[in-house]
Amino acid sequence: MIKIGIVGASGYTGGELLRFLKNHPEVEIVAATSRKFDGQPIYNVHPHLRDLEIKFENLKPDEIDADLVFTATPHGASMKIVPELLKNNMKVVDLSGDYRFDNIKTYEKWYGYEHTHHLKAVYGLPEINRELIKEADLVANPGCYPTGAILACLPIVAEKIAEKIVVDAKSGVSGAGVTPTDATHFPNCSDSVSPYAVTTHRHGPEIQEKLSKFGNAKVSFTPHLVPVIRGIMTTVHSFIIEDVSSDYIQEIYKEFYDGEPFVRVLEKGEIPRLSSVRGSNNCHIGSFDIDENGRLVVASAIDNLVKGASGQAVHNMNLMFGFPETESIDMVGLHP
Amino acid sequence: MIKIGIVGASGYTGGELLRFLKNHPEVEIVAATSRKFDGQPIYNVHPHLRDLEIKFENLKPDEIDADLVFTATPHGASMKIVPELLKNNMKVVDLSGDYRFDNIKTYEKWYGYEHTHHLKAVYGLPEINRELIKEADLVANPGCYPTGAILACLPIVAEKIAEKIVVDAKSGVSGAGVTPTDATHFPNCSDSVSPYAVTTHRHGPEIQEKLSKFGNAKVSFTPHLVPVIRGIMTTVHSFIIEDVSSDYIQEIYKEFYDGEPFVRVLEKGEIPRLSSVRGSNNCHIGSFDIDENGRLVVASAIDNLVKGASGQAVHNMNLMFGFPETESIDMVGLHP
Amino acid sequence: MIKIGIVGASGYTGGELLRFLKNHPEVEIVAATSRKFDGQPIYNVHPHLRDLEIKFENLKPDEIDADLVFTATPHGASMKIVPELLKNNMKVVDLSGDYRFDNIKTYEKWYGYEHTHHLKAVYGLPEINRELIKEADLVANPGCYPTGAILACLPIVAEKIAEKIVVDAKSGVSGAGVTPTDATHFPNCSDSVSPYAVTTHRHGPEIQEKLSKFGNAKVSFTPHLVPVIRGIMTTVHSFIIEDVSSDYIQEIYKEFYDGEPFVRVLEKGEIPRLSSVRGSNNCHIGSFDIDENGRLVVASAIDNLVKGASGQAVHNMNLMFGFPETESIDMVGLHP
Amino acid sequence: MIKIGIVGASGYTGGELLRFLKNHPEVEIVAATSRKFDGQPIYNVHPHLRDLEIKFENLKPDEIDADLVFTATPHGASMKIVPELLKNNMKVVDLSGDYRFDNIKTYEKWYGYEHTHHLKAVYGLPEINRELIKEADLVANPGCYPTGAILACLPIVAEKIAEKIVVDAKSGVSGAGVTPTDATHFPNCSDSVSPYAVTTHRHGPEIQEKLSKFGNAKVSFTPHLVPVIRGIMTTVHSFIIEDVSSDYIQEIYKEFYDGEPFVRVLEKGEIPRLSSVRGSNNCHIGSFDIDENGRLVVASAIDNLVKGASGQAVHNMNLMFGFPETESIDMVGLHP
Repeated sequence: MIKIGIVGASGYTGGELLRFLKNHPEVEIVAATSRKFDGQPIYNVHPHLRDLEIKFENLKPDEIDADLVFTATPHGASMKIVPELLKNNMKVVDLSGDYRFDNIKTYEKWYGYEHTHHLKAVYGLPEINRELIKEADLVANPGCYPTGAILACLPIVAEKIAEKIVVDAKSGVSGAGVTPTDATHFPNCSDSVSPYAVTTHRHGPEIQEKLSKFGNAKVSFTPHLVPVIRGIMTTVHSFIIEDVSSDYIQEIYKEFYDGEPFVRVLEKGEIPRLSSVRGSNNCHIGSFDIDENGRLVVASAIDNLVKGASGQAVHNMNLMFGFPETESIDMVGLHP
Repeated sequence: MIKIGIVGASGYTGGELLRFLKNHPEVEIVAATSRKFDGQPIYNVHPHLRDLEIKFENLKPDEIDADLVFTATPHGASMKIVPELLKNNMKVVDLSGDYRFDNIKTYEKWYGYEHTHHLKAVYGLPEINRELIKEADLVANPGCYPTGAILACLPIVAEKIAEKIVVDAKSGVSGAGVTPTDATHFPNCSDSVSPYAVTTHRHGPEIQEKLSKFGNAKVSFTPHLVPVIRGIMTTVHSFIIEDVSSDYIQEIYKEFYDGEPFVRVLEKGEIPRLSSVRGSNNCHIGSFDIDENGRLVVASAIDNLVKGASGQAVHNMNLMFGFPETESIDMVGLHP
Repeated sequence: MIKIGIVGASGYTGGELLRFLKNHPEVEIVAATSRKFDGQPIYNVHPHLRDLEIKFENLKPDEIDADLVFTATPHGASMKIVPELLKNNMKVVDLSGDYRFDNIKTYEKWYGYEHTHHLKAVYGLPEINRELIKEADLVANPGCYPTGAILACLPIVAEKIAEKIVVDAKSGVSGAGVTPTDATHFPNCSDSVSPYAVTTHRHGPEIQEKLSKFGNAKVSFTPHLVPVIRGIMTTVHSFIIEDVSSDYIQEIYKEFYDGEPFVRVLEKGEIPRLSSVRGSNNCHIGSFDIDENGRLVVASAIDNLVKGASGQAVHNMNLMFGFPETESIDMVGLHP
Repeated sequence: MIKIGIVGASGYTGGELLRFLKNHPEVEIVAATSRKFDGQPIYNVHPHLRDLEIKFENLKPDEIDADLVFTATPHGASMKIVPELLKNNMKVVDLSGDYRFDNIKTYEKWYGYEHTHHLKAVYGLPEINRELIKEADLVANPGCYPTGAILACLPIVAEKIAEKIVVDAKSGVSGAGVTPTDATHFPNCSDSVSPYAVTTHRHGPEIQEKLSKFGNAKVSFTPHLVPVIRGIMTTVHSFIIEDVSSDYIQEIYKEFYDGEPFVRVLEKGEIPRLSSVRGSNNCHIGSFDIDENGRLVVASAIDNLVKGASGQAVHNMNLMFGFPETESIDMVGLHP
């Protein structure tokens, strides 16, 4: 039984962490922090967690006594907390972007401010870093778009199948977080599809840096907001550089992800569906069709709040403490 | 360990039964029938149940060997199957309307045809019939609207607080089933709200018959289709016949549902939310406000496919076999 | 040709006023005010009005020189502007709640603050006040819910058909205005239905005051937020006090609204649809069914931003200046 | 005043044709055919067109006496009607795919059957064929995806800015037509995004054939279904082959579409929105951003039923008869 703290427990990722951890047999939640909701029951903010007898507390990092802390804090805020938690002998899974980049210059360029507390972290995508995660004290949980994009691109990149890749991703609105904005105002985003940050989204360089460890392909990324609560559909268009078949591509994916507990490579003719993974930690990957111009299409579906955030964070925790990998995150999607 | 059959496993309620039962430690699924999808893997129809190694089979009732069969069959079809299953010493939870009515004349009037195989069944709303369900061989699983409406009305009716009740219910589209129709065509039902069968819905007399065992209130029912996948919000308007306070009403509800594992009576000022119960077997009840005309408002939220169908069916199974009541159906809602 | 000013032109009702007025042959828009967007082109805020060569201006009331001003300002703000506009010999159509009530005590009770500038105004529902509107200098444009509710209730009340009426209304999210809030945040209000202000909405007493001029029926009102951009579906449940038929009721509605340019009484068996009136100034009224408890159901559909706000405001302007009633607001709904 | 017939008037494109034509001052609708709804009033199917006093008729082609007929008929059906209409001296705007291809072999390959009645037609995209349309007897109205894609790609192709183009398009569900299917069933397509026909959609070769007249770029096309009623957002990714700036690209677009009544090139920093064009015949084009890999993004927004179908068809009619181009199709979008 380990003690768990959640810093920033009032956001969507905090809510999902609580949903998964409350039934985890090896875990006791000892702190769920929130400045704004200090003293209030969890269900005031997360109305589905009605029976959870925990209250938000406004705690400073040094007031937390845990074995592992999830920092579900904004970019720029995590770097001010994480070093102290580590110093006090707690392990950390950070859900912000602060520790995702190996190259601190890339971080500073795309996030637009100085990184004042750089530390070596393991990028927490279990499908590429499983063994490193097991040994890590600090895991940087991947971004939502990078999770869907990297899993869809990896075999192509690693097998040098394509050099130019376009990632056209469509995300549900919960990816924008819990705070209302013009972009998330129902009359604006319902019945609508919006490309945004079309060449400037921070998740683009994150995808590129991680894939570059596997091959030289150049990845171009454009996200879209779609009228969906949860889920990211990632459509990967890549120009193949030698003449291979669709069946061959699918076979590569099957081998690549063989044994992975949360990745499913679909059969030919199947297309991933958001409802298949809604609320679950699964990633479905499919299509593998190639057109007359040698353009290959691969599509992946994840739940941005689960495999794209809190489910993956719990997966990382399970690895870091030697628990069964799928413990408490093995639910299937909610379909329809 | 008991053996379970599901007749009509390709619909939404069939999919939900499979979702709950696949992890139930006391249950083995021995048959999932479908005429249309005979021989196909379950995930062709229920794409989220990818790892379920079961195939649909086109089985006749006498080819099923189980301890309990869920008949997720249409109204009029169940009555042709259920008697034979019972005769072969299987217990049955029927999800159709065929065995819900005590008064067969009411059934025939509202369903529009003769009931050819009437049998005595227990109405499977555990909150009113828990002890009878435990002893039953045939449980008639309640309709989705009646589940939300009866739970919201019961204390008012039983305590003789009101004589005239209007139930204005709003249902998600999955309540219409898996078969596409004009009414469920996205361009028709998205960005829309539609009253339908405004005074003639079959669930009206079901609500009335069950509530009439508790008091004399007359219930008027109107359903609406709303652009929601899952969930029923039931708004109950009733004219109170003596001068009681909102606090008093809430207290009555708290007492009435004290100890119920799946009903939550909200605090004053809270309103039930569909996301709080989405995918879960919970029913949230709240409001209890009274206006200047003596009109009391009570609102309940359920997931029509879970508490309104398959979750409640598994609850009934748990009761019939002495399993823990909440086994495999104690998940919380998916919010957001 | 008259000169028109719009105070508060950056909200949704401001946008709709501009949409209708830009093609009106008798109208020149001389001012569209906004503090926040001063100097910016209209299409920065209303992206569909791309070709409109008008800019927002931050004008004070005494800087406007117009024949009529639409005040699309918040409750409490209008009362600080309207008197000065009138004093400067401009006519006013006020879209706030400030001048809707005859009884200032009712206003102050429900709006929660003192009314500092009371003036006599005509309630701008042309179906009841057409002749008074023609002569008015100050027209109080009705609330969105009251428009749908009053039109659906009027014949019942005027003909003394019922004494107790429950209005269960479902509104699209644009009714909450242009400013993002928790309630309008897509992950909160999509796939959801929410009763709110269940016995305390300000539109309740507005409906009651206006109907009370026609009869003694007591009206109870509860609004709901539904995942729809535009539109209000109003379901009126009333207990009839003598034995009349559904056909008779429909006939009363047909006679009552005979000749009204924007009200359509549907045939028996038809149900109003939001798409039929989306973007239009029409109100469709239908159902007229009566159940075994003597409860009559009438349903109406309007677009909350058009018949429920700006379309009706232009209708009032047309009446005040003797233009054809339907000028520039006679478009049909956008279906699907 | 010309006489107009609409063959296949009960679908969505038929409804939109009626919406535009009913107020056209130069047009009299003499026939609106439907086999299924023969004898019924238009508003039984198109509930927003309540005041239109026309009935569906089950007419054969030789029973129509008109100056122009819109054939809103399925692929394969048009070819059996159009020759006879032309022979009887009627002009035709065909909304099916039957006459869109110059190369009949391409048609037969992608549509999967023989073309039995090939005729020379003008492809009815006014922005490229305005003068030819004016002289044409048979105009093939473009597909919805091709309209959005060609307008977004044309300047790039014509100016030889890119050789490889990926068109990732997202369409609202009304594009699938009026007939309910599994794909359009609300519980399936709401809260979802689905790539489909990822390399095999018929609109791909249509886009390629038309663009090939302007340059050699190879276009790869993938459509997606999104939970939107109306609208297509087309995201065009292309790899530029010389070093040009984003400003330069935008300038090319501005020049290319200068004077076009229905195309708007947005300013830098603006992104097209579906609500800006909802219900209107406009096409908004924007973005023009270029990333570090030399990938250019251009996005266009249209309403699939208007600029992508019936609005463009009326535009073609206006050109064919010398009416003002924008007559009866100059409404702005419905935002929000």
